[in-house]
Amino acid sequence: MIDVCLLGTGGVMPLPERWLSSVLIRYNGRMILLDCGEGTQVPVKMAGWGFKAIDAVLLTHYHGDHVAGLPGLLLTIGNSGRTEPLILMGPPGLKKVVEGLTVIAPELPYALQIVELPEDKISENRLNGLVIRSIPADHTITCLSYCVFLKRQGKFDVEKAEKLSIPVRYYKLLQNGCEVKIGDRVIKPEMVLGPERKGIKVCYCTDTRPTESLVEFVRDADLLICEGMYGSNEDFEKAAQKKHMTFPEAAEIAKKANVQRLWLTHYSPSLTEPGKYIPQVRCIFPNAEVATDLITATLRFNSE
Amino acid sequence: MIDVCLLGTGGVMPLPERWLSSVLIRYNGRMILLDCGEGTQVPVKMAGWGFKAIDAVLLTHYHGDHVAGLPGLLLTIGNSGRTEPLILMGPPGLKKVVEGLTVIAPELPYALQIVELPEDKISENRLNGLVIRSIPADHTITCLSYCVFLKRQGKFDVEKAEKLSIPVRYYKLLQNGCEVKIGDRVIKPEMVLGPERKGIKVCYCTDTRPTESLVEFVRDADLLICEGMYGSNEDFEKAAQKKHMTFPEAAEIAKKANVQRLWLTHYSPSLTEPGKYIPQVRCIFPNAEVATDLITATLRFNSE
Repeated sequence: MIDVCLLGTGGVMPLPERWLSSVLIRYNGRMILLDCGEGTQVPVKMAGWGFKAIDAVLLTHYHGDHVAGLPGLLLTIGNSGRTEPLILMGPPGLKKVVEGLTVIAPELPYALQIVELPEDKISENRLNGLVIRSIPADHTITCLSYCVFLKRQGKFDVEKAEKLSIPVRYYKLLQNGCEVKIGDRVIKPEMVLGPERKGIKVCYCTDTRPTESLVEFVRDADLLICEGMYGSNEDFEKAAQKKHMTFPEAAEIAKKANVQRLWLTHYSPSLTEPGKYIPQVRCIFPNAEVATDLITATLRFNSE
Repeated sequence: MIDVCLLGTGGVMPLPERWLSSVLIRYNGRMILLDCGEGTQVPVKMAGWGFKAIDAVLLTHYHGDHVAGLPGLLLTIGNSGRTEPLILMGPPGLKKVVEGLTVIAPELPYALQIVELPEDKISENRLNGLVIRSIPADHTITCLSYCVFLKRQGKFDVEKAEKLSIPVRYYKLLQNGCEVKIGDRVIKPEMVLGPERKGIKVCYCTDTRPTESLVEFVRDADLLICEGMYGSNEDFEKAAQKKHMTFPEAAEIAKKANVQRLWLTHYSPSLTEPGKYIPQVRCIFPNAEVATDLITATLRFNSE
């Protein structure tokens, strides 16, 4: 199970009634945050999931509206009592950005682990059972899109386990993907588990033009959170020039990639009524939301 | 005339219903901002006075809740079309802080002029007819309190001007404090102006313990905006340890210094109902406000 909260839906600058685009993901009591524009710590507080369990902050790129909230968030996480290291991931240049921004947060009570991801190819990292993949986006500066997977083991095959005379007390460990040693024998999980089952896939793509590789990257996602800087294709040229997307372009990605749900986000400050474009968007992709701040979903494994 | 808007009243971190403490001052169509914590650009937008005319940002110190909003504000001022230089003032270390924070705002369409003020004595600077004074505060790190004065020329003495045979078309220039040359003669403003009249004095003191020098610094102010991290003297020890003030301590400063009005600000996040301390505060200093975000005042010269 994964809980997802889209903390804000704004682009460029925070507005009185619209926080900047960022996503909080919670699974097994741990959290990761995707992007951290100015003020993001406020909707994190409003979400009510706390600050202490945020293990990683993943940044798409270093425009202010995606990263300026980092020092304040790090200070507030410090105030929450966290002492375990916190991971920061983002495209190359992250170290320099963090060194700059933390000039006003010089004494955090936990360590920062900085992971610079490749700007020119797909990357994969693991964090507490989550798989985090990044892919280069097509923006005005180096930028990444992210997918987060919660994998699901195959079904435990009791018959196989009995044939291998594995004591019942080891079943749970094997189910969780751990090897166990019984006497001289090493039992590997794949010896008693069926084929891997469909897990949960959440994607966050912002500040990018649509690309074919992006469609493949988000294929079959349970939830695609995708930018829509402009509501209508009337603003297509502006979107193309500024390396953003229109709502219809984002909906086309969702359709081509066969995702389950689409949340639109990262609206231009000039887009004061994004909701009025819902009908056009749903003509292309029916399961679309023109998201509002703090929209939340719980995504479950199929048979749960 | 000066317009003052207290943009937020919070300390430590921005909250869902409370922006961080900062003050916007407007005079003759120009503006200065005092402090710029995370999110400050949002109440600036709410105040409705625009961004482009902000000529200077004065920082008390470099704790995140007073400065983390700077890169976002600078970017938004850039988006407003400003091309004239912008002045940043603050205690020593400002250059390093600005270099760090602007790592995410590398290409502003205007220049930044950095003025580091002394940490150990009173300073005085002039900006478009305003006088800006700073004084060392008593906080956990180097910190300054500020006074802003709008001076008022003496009254124009028509009799004196007539005796000096000054053509009427020069009166306005002399009234505005400019020298004029008439033939071979240089007429100085003081030759036709009476003694300087009472101007307008606004003070902003936050993140400091009360001190005697602070009382003298804010003496006779038209408006004192002063921190009150805690509502009651029951929290005196906490306030003393963290180098902040209680409401009664701030009210005592206002009383001793004979100021006209007091606005309390910079409340601890734990202070959820600051308004309930109004009666105690007004026992000490009747013209006190336990301010709320975006409280605004217009301060006029006496006879206006």
